[in-house]
Amino acid sequence: MAQKPSIPKGTRDFSPIEMVKRNYIFDTIKDVFRLYGFQPIETPAMENLSTLMGKYGEEGDKLLFKILNSGDFVSKVSDEVYAEKDSVKLTPEISEKGLRYDLTVPFARFVVQYRNDITFPFKRYQIQPVWRADRPQKGRYREFYQCDVDVIGSNSLLNEMELVQIIDDVFERLKINTVVKINNRKILAGIAEIIGENERIIDITVAIDKLEKIGLEKVNRELSEKGVSDEAIQKLQPILALEGSSAEKITQLENVLAASEIGIKGVEEIKTLFGYLEQLDLQTEVELDLTLARGLNYYTGAIFEVKAKDVAIGSICGGGRYDDLTGIFGLPDVSGVGVSFGAERIFDVLTQLDLFPHESLETTKVMFVNFGEKEEAYCLPVLAQLRKSSINAEIFPENAKMKKQMNYANKKDIPYVVLAGESEMNEGKFTLKNMESGGQKSVTAEELIKILS
Amino acid sequence: MAQKPSIPKGTRDFSPIEMVKRNYIFDTIKDVFRLYGFQPIETPAMENLSTLMGKYGEEGDKLLFKILNSGDFVSKVSDEVYAEKDSVKLTPEISEKGLRYDLTVPFARFVVQYRNDITFPFKRYQIQPVWRADRPQKGRYREFYQCDVDVIGSNSLLNEMELVQIIDDVFERLKINTVVKINNRKILAGIAEIIGENERIIDITVAIDKLEKIGLEKVNRELSEKGVSDEAIQKLQPILALEGSSAEKITQLENVLAASEIGIKGVEEIKTLFGYLEQLDLQTEVELDLTLARGLNYYTGAIFEVKAKDVAIGSICGGGRYDDLTGIFGLPDVSGVGVSFGAERIFDVLTQLDLFPHESLETTKVMFVNFGEKEEAYCLPVLAQLRKSSINAEIFPENAKMKKQMNYANKKDIPYVVLAGESEMNEGKFTLKNMESGGQKSVTAEELIKILS
Repeated sequence: MAQKPSIPKGTRDFSPIEMVKRNYIFDTIKDVFRLYGFQPIETPAMENLSTLMGKYGEEGDKLLFKILNSGDFVSKVSDEVYAEKDSVKLTPEISEKGLRYDLTVPFARFVVQYRNDITFPFKRYQIQPVWRADRPQKGRYREFYQCDVDVIGSNSLLNEMELVQIIDDVFERLKINTVVKINNRKILAGIAEIIGENERIIDITVAIDKLEKIGLEKVNRELSEKGVSDEAIQKLQPILALEGSSAEKITQLENVLAASEIGIKGVEEIKTLFGYLEQLDLQTEVELDLTLARGLNYYTGAIFEVKAKDVAIGSICGGGRYDDLTGIFGLPDVSGVGVSFGAERIFDVLTQLDLFPHESLETTKVMFVNFGEKEEAYCLPVLAQLRKSSINAEIFPENAKMKKQMNYANKKDIPYVVLAGESEMNEGKFTLKNMESGGQKSVTAEELIKILS
Repeated sequence: MAQKPSIPKGTRDFSPIEMVKRNYIFDTIKDVFRLYGFQPIETPAMENLSTLMGKYGEEGDKLLFKILNSGDFVSKVSDEVYAEKDSVKLTPEISEKGLRYDLTVPFARFVVQYRNDITFPFKRYQIQPVWRADRPQKGRYREFYQCDVDVIGSNSLLNEMELVQIIDDVFERLKINTVVKINNRKILAGIAEIIGENERIIDITVAIDKLEKIGLEKVNRELSEKGVSDEAIQKLQPILALEGSSAEKITQLENVLAASEIGIKGVEEIKTLFGYLEQLDLQTEVELDLTLARGLNYYTGAIFEVKAKDVAIGSICGGGRYDDLTGIFGLPDVSGVGVSFGAERIFDVLTQLDLFPHESLETTKVMFVNFGEKEEAYCLPVLAQLRKSSINAEIFPENAKMKKQMNYANKKDIPYVVLAGESEMNEGKFTLKNMESGGQKSVTAEELIKILS
């Protein structure tokens, strides 16, 4: 019986036109990564569940796609466990592999597994799909690509600088106006220390993160509800009110955080980084944003987030420095810094702003209309010559109706069509038709190649 | 507790050097596909099990990786079914998705699902990983890439011709000497008809397929054991003994198969195809091979298989024409023809013959040694200029010991290193060291860019 074909919820097929657009994004990003000396790696789609579980919190464990063991998997479950009919208890008995949830944990696993073969600092990029059993909704998929770039095994702030340069280069090439927001986890720790609420650093930064959205009053209320003392909230006010340029904010922070060792360390790092960035000829805006929090448990130094200026959408790139990526796999104290580009959102931005360059979407440059056997024989050598000249070319494979053939060329967005019937054959020429202007002219084979090159 | 990191059996990580080599193969293949007007698509890693099950035989169903349903999956299993504790019965109750097993079934699903949006003939390529829960062994992985290229919705033999051209182009670019073996399913059907064993076509072709390996005598014995009549085996002998060039074989087949309508149709197709191919300037050898069988249930016309001439390894590319790819999803009579390149085997061939071109393996062209803050500041503008000139360049991120920095450049196979210390800064120059020859010279920034461009 015939089935009505469909794909799982939250997954997507990519048509040729979507693929060409996506490849434009991926190729741009890869070109820039390589320009800075980063090298690609790939890891398997499936990892052992022992590698993945417990790395993304309880919620993350639930969102992992788990793979059923092969063969007679159920016979290996003890009768006692089986009798409970409890999904949570049953899962580890019948599944030992899962699809990767992000590229960071597999990368950490990779670094530890090959620590003796890797030359540090290790500059790698990785562009692969990840899978999350999240509730699908607009713009949120169960399968999506991540584009990560990281330097592992170097504390130098030159790495942070180069990541900002990479961000700048990528978005300049894509013609997206951006602002790079930068913060430092040590500054946030310093703030918590100064106001005497070391323990509540996460609550505090989560609240501060909302400043722009909900305003100062509501932030203060939330802090109070979370148990932050009135005194601490008072002390926090001048920091929340910090204004001016990044340089001015840095100067003010130096005073405010003078008594906090970690805070001052953070200010120094930010100062060095902004010092580097000032000397570069960046297109993007760069600003110090103290409300930037981003996965705080994870980052230990710089934090980055990139926003598109002309489209209201979440961040299109983000990342930061983490001092212990690999500790969980037994290799502590390996510092790393990296960012991840959000290909899906970048796709949406380019679509909304109509920024996909038309030439890059061209797949076939010229199609030969098929008029039958004799004409095929006349066209095939020229077709071969065009391809030798690196021109993407095709011949309609059948002597179909003209309308059908032209419709095919149109639908495929092929800019040129060649017509060669009896009169052209008699003259030893080809009629080249420009599909956009509709204009056509009679040319020799050599002229054809020259025009299309 | 720290875990000793590892990956699932039969899967692989790809290091930078492996990635660069693999990308060389994939990029070569893609470039050729595009040259012939093929466009990329991608489908999700996971498909509904209803799409996959029953498409690869009973054995295939077992080799599918199945994904456990999310949430409290076990509560949805009826107590009766659960009580049986039977893996086969339990699986459909707790899993509704699986990882794709090949690219053909997802493509058939794609064509039917989007039949109203696709302009036929549809020329698509697809390069993605597939997963099989096969027993891992040398050269056989549970995750591996397939590179498929197909034309759907055209009966023209021009498509077969172009696929051979594509094979020729790909292996010429990769510098692998190949022979393309061609057969036609209709000829095989004609042979079965002529010898009066229509029903046993599969047994017959499976036996014929072994001719080269086991010899004529054993083939005949196998046929006899399979129940093919002595008379039929007698009739088959002149066909098995066919010799000479492809053209000569075709002439002999025309006589032998004169009484079989399907057989003569097959001979005509082969004749037309060889007629086309003769007019092309092919590098590869092309030969008619009547022992070629390849997944017979599936193919209905031409069958292709490509062998590397200088390495003993199975076929490195293969495919054929199938008249009913999409029937199983409710769209009958859509003819297609395609081939699939075996990236893993091509990788092995290139490795064994040492054919990876050294330039294509280069990832960073030049590394600046880091002598400290002042020197960094001197180098950074030149580094930016190099990158603007599309030269992959990096600076060691820390002022580490010289030996460490040079070791890094060596390990990463970086061909040039720039040294710029106090004396270079005083002169406004840079010392460029060729890492292969060891030679070095003093150059200006402009000269540096010129040499490295």
